[in-house]
Amino acid sequence: MAMDFKSRVRRLQQALAGQRVDAVLVTRMPNVRYLCGFTGSSGALVLAPDRATLFADGRYTVQARQETHAASVRIAKGSPSTAAISSIGRATKTVGIEADHVTVSQMDALSKAAPKVRFKPLSGLVERARMVKQPDEVMQLKAAVMLASGLFEVLLHGITPGIAESHVAAELEYVARRSGAQGMSFETIVASGPRSAMPHGVASEQAIPAQGFVVLDYGVILAGYCSDMTRTVHVGPPGRKQRDLYQAVLDAQLAAIDVVRPGVQAGKVDQAARKVLRKSGFDSYFTHSTGHGVGLEIHEPPRLGKGQTELLQAGMVITIEPGAYIPGLGGVRIEDMVLVTETGCQVLTPTSKELIIL
Amino acid sequence: MAMDFKSRVRRLQQALAGQRVDAVLVTRMPNVRYLCGFTGSSGALVLAPDRATLFADGRYTVQARQETHAASVRIAKGSPSTAAISSIGRATKTVGIEADHVTVSQMDALSKAAPKVRFKPLSGLVERARMVKQPDEVMQLKAAVMLASGLFEVLLHGITPGIAESHVAAELEYVARRSGAQGMSFETIVASGPRSAMPHGVASEQAIPAQGFVVLDYGVILAGYCSDMTRTVHVGPPGRKQRDLYQAVLDAQLAAIDVVRPGVQAGKVDQAARKVLRKSGFDSYFTHSTGHGVGLEIHEPPRLGKGQTELLQAGMVITIEPGAYIPGLGGVRIEDMVLVTETGCQVLTPTSKELIIL
Repeated sequence: MAMDFKSRVRRLQQALAGQRVDAVLVTRMPNVRYLCGFTGSSGALVLAPDRATLFADGRYTVQARQETHAASVRIAKGSPSTAAISSIGRATKTVGIEADHVTVSQMDALSKAAPKVRFKPLSGLVERARMVKQPDEVMQLKAAVMLASGLFEVLLHGITPGIAESHVAAELEYVARRSGAQGMSFETIVASGPRSAMPHGVASEQAIPAQGFVVLDYGVILAGYCSDMTRTVHVGPPGRKQRDLYQAVLDAQLAAIDVVRPGVQAGKVDQAARKVLRKSGFDSYFTHSTGHGVGLEIHEPPRLGKGQTELLQAGMVITIEPGAYIPGLGGVRIEDMVLVTETGCQVLTPTSKELIIL
Repeated sequence: MAMDFKSRVRRLQQALAGQRVDAVLVTRMPNVRYLCGFTGSSGALVLAPDRATLFADGRYTVQARQETHAASVRIAKGSPSTAAISSIGRATKTVGIEADHVTVSQMDALSKAAPKVRFKPLSGLVERARMVKQPDEVMQLKAAVMLASGLFEVLLHGITPGIAESHVAAELEYVARRSGAQGMSFETIVASGPRSAMPHGVASEQAIPAQGFVVLDYGVILAGYCSDMTRTVHVGPPGRKQRDLYQAVLDAQLAAIDVVRPGVQAGKVDQAARKVLRKSGFDSYFTHSTGHGVGLEIHEPPRLGKGQTELLQAGMVITIEPGAYIPGLGGVRIEDMVLVTETGCQVLTPTSKELIIL
């Protein structure tokens, strides 16, 4: 799909004056990719009102020219960011840097390379632009979601008592790759039995038990864009407590989705999920936030956590993923990807959320 | 395998005085893992001469206690690093931070959380300790190398003209997982035909051509430790030029291995490889450095690049991977993992380096 890099670069160039900088040095690679298309592991993009130049190192001589749009390309002898800052003319007095990414050491090297430049730490400048997805990006995200959702059957098929969690993940990841995924968007979580009470229980050598929850949390990358989904299934007949826990988490998830629309504070979505879990006494077991933005990275702003005041906007793509994790009993998480629309939202993940008993 | 975390923590505690700090705040996760065993995605380890405390967030309540050795565990309400710095007593006046990891924004937050503390930027403190592997680590690295090397046959088996590079990678990664790998240590490179001239050509949708080089660069993760190997094969009968290129790169690789021993500057190993390639006129096509350390991360110090003065030490595990990439003709890279021993070195990768013609 042809991405509209020119409009992205132009938009950022127009934002420079408002940030009171003459140029900005973009070194965070997902941001570089977003602005000009370059997918290398290292590089530096200088944006001034009248120019955009990508500096890459010698490994990327061919690739940088092939991939880069909306910016000219220069191959640096040493560090791309040092070359970039050294290329800046005398008229450029103040340069914005990505304060959430540039390290204390890198800042020191930049200051030495350009002692006359005043560096201004900026936070989330490109990330804020990336929060609201362009139509071409929404299409890519939908494709990634559909691919991952289509693999859920494969995943279910692999869940058999006695099989290692890591084998279940291996089957999934193999078919994902064969189906066109570039890779997984994060380490696949297959957390079964007592491990389901660990919110981040990546697939281990432990065998699927004959009885208990299995939390399945995974995503694929397609053309750079990430998907993210979680379903929790139960092996063997669930008890009353397990059914209650599942229903409470599902109700919380639906309640959170229900409040998603432009103009709502991110924290209100989190609050809606917590309120439902409080009714059934599970709220103290919900130990993470309700969701996050997804795009070129698996975790992007906005964060849908307690007290977050960021306002949702049409075009944001977020996860809604409350959970509850009770040591001894097990854990449940249910997660969809959701597009904020002009009038409310659209749940992108088509997979059923009814409790599956294997 | 039981890792000796206590000796690692003790060694770093003993180094504090030499760095003129009362404590150090370790926030780079591979360093946290190295020191205390915790494998979570976020956390902060405070080391003072008489204590070691890991701060983790609520997601890791169970996991942090299970995994952490040689440090006590505290669960932070908010950011682990803020909680860590706030826990520091009045007697702690100077705190070292990891300047190559802490961002400008994080530094700002730390200063606000502990306005009376003087922060001292330290560079590579834990990384330097990690350069020389302990015997338990060497065992893990050898196991990862053997697993990956054993998969090379699988990889060769998949290379057929007309098959997409990404399918070749998918087969490899599936069998790797099924064979016990936690995952791949980086995005698998399958760069065939004209793409072999891209040093970082990750497996694409392009089909393997009927004629040309295929660069295969991959690694597995086993118990957190990474392997890394590259072989280049030729599909169809290679021409004279292709054979010359292959032989030159192989000679360069062997020459580099030949100089590896304790006390040698890292840059001398790089120089040895370049010297051989210069004889055959290929040196200008060798656009990256000769190698790097490997361990809990795929790229660790030392770097074996031009002019690097770091001295090799027994116990270091490094890659030796010269290459030459000629647009139009194709590219070749050959890479082994090598252990620096008391008397020289031991090549860990057992896979043959003769040119394989498929």
